Amino acid sequence: MSRPMIDREATAELLLEAAEELIRERGAYEISVTDLALACGMSQSNVYRFFDSKEALFDAIAERWFRDFGVAMEAILNADMPVREKLFRFFECRLILKLARYDSDPALFMSYLALGESHHDVVDGYIDLATHHLAVLVSEAMAEGEFAGRAIDEVVGLINLMTIPFCDPHMIVEHRGQATPDNLRRVMDVIFAGLGQPEQARQTLRLAS
Amino acid sequence: MSRPMIDREATAELLLEAAEELIRERGAYEISVTDLALACGMSQSNVYRFFDSKEALFDAIAERWFRDFGVAMEAILNADMPVREKLFRFFECRLILKLARYDSDPALFMSYLALGESHHDVVDGYIDLATHHLAVLVSEAMAEGEFAGRAIDEVVGLINLMTIPFCDPHMIVEHRGQATPDNLRRVMDVIFAGLGQPEQARQTLRLAS
Repeated sequence: MSRPMIDREATAELLLEAAEELIRERGAYEISVTDLALACGMSQSNVYRFFDSKEALFDAIAERWFRDFGVAMEAILNADMPVREKLFRFFECRLILKLARYDSDPALFMSYLALGESHHDVVDGYIDLATHHLAVLVSEAMAEGEFAGRAIDEVVGLINLMTIPFCDPHMIVEHRGQATPDNLRRVMDVIFAGLGQPEQARQTLRLAS
Repeated sequence: MSRPMIDREATAELLLEAAEELIRERGAYEISVTDLALACGMSQSNVYRFFDSKEALFDAIAERWFRDFGVAMEAILNADMPVREKLFRFFECRLILKLARYDSDPALFMSYLALGESHHDVVDGYIDLATHHLAVLVSEAMAEGEFAGRAIDEVVGLINLMTIPFCDPHMIVEHRGQATPDNLRRVMDVIFAGLGQPEQARQTLRLAS
């Protein structure tokens, strides 16, 4: 007897598609439940059964945007491949997804970004989740001898900084020709080679140079 | 008999200070020569003697904004210090300047950034100049044995990508707590260590791991 639940989910998804259509038409603006009801020809009280506030509607829009990223990250985390490759793919899968979305509708992509900026708290939750996944991968790599002599927080922090051009959607758009999977591979190679040398070895190198 | 020229430069500078005051008051907007004349109590024809179009006025505003960056970069290029330190300072001096300007008036800083976005061609000229200086420093480093076996364009491109959080003013603001001179030092260390290993050595490392 799961039919009603499926119907409910399908209707919610249709409402979110209609919300995306409104964003596509009007750009980044705060969609109200009233707007959405009007656009779908549904009563406001009916739409409220799905999203009981503007905030709940935005949460659902964000959840829909980030869903594929979550699926992709989980797949990489559970994949059976060398940990260096996992770390590369962890960034690559999200880069490819963003590039594809941007290319398919640049204006819509920018509208979503602008919406995200006015809801930093919601977006930050998803960014924190990605950082958590990254920390899991880094600790996996450390167990295999990578990043010897480093603290996990230091490694996660530095990787987060050095991969910004491939993660931050504004940077991906601004550096469209440079923020490529090939360059990501090069940067990850530099990170592994450069963070592979523990502090003491680097000190010695610096003294010797 | 250089007095008239000095007076002319001093007046141009006063006009640019008045333009900054307008940006501070009204945010990012295209200042016209008319606005500036009105704000300074000067005749339009007099202001036109200094800036003969809106574009010329913006060029001068940009030149004034970037002046200190040029001076700082030139000083580092000509400094007598180890090339690794030079490369670090080359990024650090501009990071510190941007952080100081942001902290002294965040709203004005953001207004300048917004103005820059609508004049990408002008700003790109200054970015290209910085990349040219970087290439000079990288070739200096290569002459001392750094980045062995790499092409200069590859090294410049990768350094530009990995230092984005410390160069791009939006990223500096967004990652205020992370875009610090200390973290820049860490990232530069990773870059030197990671880019120091020629392709063949890295391949071997990868095969061995």
